[in-house]
Amino acid sequence: MDAYTAVRTKRDERHYLDTPIPDDVKHRIFQAGRMAGSARGLEPCRFIVVEDAERRLALANCGRTPPHIIAAPMAVAIIIPEGGRAFDAGRAAQNMMIAAWADGVGSRPASADNAACAKELLGIPDGYELVLAIAFGYPDPEQPLQSGNKRVSLDEMVHWERW
Amino acid sequence: MDAYTAVRTKRDERHYLDTPIPDDVKHRIFQAGRMAGSARGLEPCRFIVVEDAERRLALANCGRTPPHIIAAPMAVAIIIPEGGRAFDAGRAAQNMMIAAWADGVGSRPASADNAACAKELLGIPDGYELVLAIAFGYPDPEQPLQSGNKRVSLDEMVHWERW
Repeated sequence: MDAYTAVRTKRDERHYLDTPIPDDVKHRIFQAGRMAGSARGLEPCRFIVVEDAERRLALANCGRTPPHIIAAPMAVAIIIPEGGRAFDAGRAAQNMMIAAWADGVGSRPASADNAACAKELLGIPDGYELVLAIAFGYPDPEQPLQSGNKRVSLDEMVHWERW
Repeated sequence: MDAYTAVRTKRDERHYLDTPIPDDVKHRIFQAGRMAGSARGLEPCRFIVVEDAERRLALANCGRTPPHIIAAPMAVAIIIPEGGRAFDAGRAAQNMMIAAWADGVGSRPASADNAACAKELLGIPDGYELVLAIAFGYPDPEQPLQSGNKRVSLDEMVHWERW
């Protein structure tokens, strides 16, 4: 898939098959996250891959039990130093989600509102914090995303020289 | 350029030609930013495109005068609601930078540490804040990025089930 098609067509999926993600696809996902740029080249992100179904359920229960973290075969928790740049986490996350999509794998972030719960569950060391977790899996063709695209128009989104 | 190659090879460039970016490339960059997913589909990001050289210099001077904002022909300021999710800004920014790179256009974020300065310069309304600005331009072939890749290894970056 060409890059522009990938970034333009990637949607945050809600429904997943439980089909496992092949190792080579996983490798490309993590490599994409690794190669994302970061402020001053600090590479602040670390990833915790959660495939165990019980642990995914427990992770979902650290938040508002997002069903896609339970349904998708892989969740990737994104960790940064406490007080670090969530912007850079977003860059790495988007890289991973685009690489996944180019291999036909959908994704969707999920917050874990109870930070202490996630920290305990995932063994996140002191000085680090969870930004959020991303579900990865093949989209369920029986439950496609609704196509109604109500995005803000480019004219409303883009200002020239001044707001 | 295929999507995985784009996310894997995109580097944050330091040196740019002043060659203008064609309108169709700009359109793909903004469209890529527009189509990035966001928490609860809120689409929090707005973009202010700064091409005027004096304004780019003034914007650079709101921060530590990053030379790439002065050299590159286009800067795009990313604006979100005050206290909004920088993670989502990072997703939109990375989409824009990947779409640009697929067209041969390099990019690099730059902070503007003086928020009040940027707010005045860009006419950012109350209730919104600048996350940062991104320089876009064709890389200067006379000043290539140094190739020494000292990224953290995948083994150090990726943990399985627990940290």
